[in-house]
Amino acid sequence: MARNTFGVREGEKTVALPDKPDAGLYFIGRIRTPWKERKDCPKNARESDALCTVELDPRFAEGLKDVETCSHLVLLYWMDQAPRNLVLQVPGHYGSQHGTFALRSPARPNPIAMSVVKLHGIEGGKLIVSGLDCLDGTPLLDIKPYLSSTDSMPDAVVGWRKRED
Amino acid sequence: MARNTFGVREGEKTVALPDKPDAGLYFIGRIRTPWKERKDCPKNARESDALCTVELDPRFAEGLKDVETCSHLVLLYWMDQAPRNLVLQVPGHYGSQHGTFALRSPARPNPIAMSVVKLHGIEGGKLIVSGLDCLDGTPLLDIKPYLSSTDSMPDAVVGWRKRED
Repeated sequence: MARNTFGVREGEKTVALPDKPDAGLYFIGRIRTPWKERKDCPKNARESDALCTVELDPRFAEGLKDVETCSHLVLLYWMDQAPRNLVLQVPGHYGSQHGTFALRSPARPNPIAMSVVKLHGIEGGKLIVSGLDCLDGTPLLDIKPYLSSTDSMPDAVVGWRKRED
Repeated sequence: MARNTFGVREGEKTVALPDKPDAGLYFIGRIRTPWKERKDCPKNARESDALCTVELDPRFAEGLKDVETCSHLVLLYWMDQAPRNLVLQVPGHYGSQHGTFALRSPARPNPIAMSVVKLHGIEGGKLIVSGLDCLDGTPLLDIKPYLSSTDSMPDAVVGWRKRED
């Protein structure tokens, strides 16, 4: 089942993407992590409590006002090395075929990753967080306060993972 | 404190945006909701258990395999009517100034909204969900399975909201 970085495995399927994008994103910063290559990244964020740093473009620095009062944040970031045309995937650690939208794989039409992180502090405009598993230098798209009232669903179930875990 | 749709209020601050985007997004579908104008939208998703429909572009339909086994999903969508240059905002229902990254306002450098929704069913490639508060026709960017192990933080706190609520 080996593939070079992000090639197509048996059981995977690609589709033609639209001719042109519908909207544009700004990279508003970079995420600094201890992981320089994909093979070094934790398989998921639960496996790591490594402290990582979020470096925000100074032009947006004032947007951090009151962020220090948040215990947890939602980070959105851009998985710029992922292919965008896979609709069916065979994740290496499962070995079975699943739809892209039933997976948290970086490979998806819009490779936007979402991670909930714990905020440890803000120093000189840089956020110190834990709960990430991405490559060093990953482009940052957004920082949001985590709202337990709407974002926390402790009883949520992903049925296919329960069957295969 | 009135402003016409998204004008700048007293206490708000804008910055110059980068000259050009760094990456492109595809709109992969549309979200159908009962709300045709901003004034009709629930102030937040907790206020509504309205059933909404997620219409995925048929080219990506196979990506839904196994999504039906998920009780909850993360939806990312594009708030295409929001300004992108605000770093300090004065939300009408608070009346005090906060940084964009301490708010869930649609106005942000990359106006990507994130909502956790309950999945009620999938019919003919359309997802029936509850937990949304966005305008009818909002462009869809991504569908992800909600993973309680990494996404659920019941004890998370947003300190400034606690003070002002």
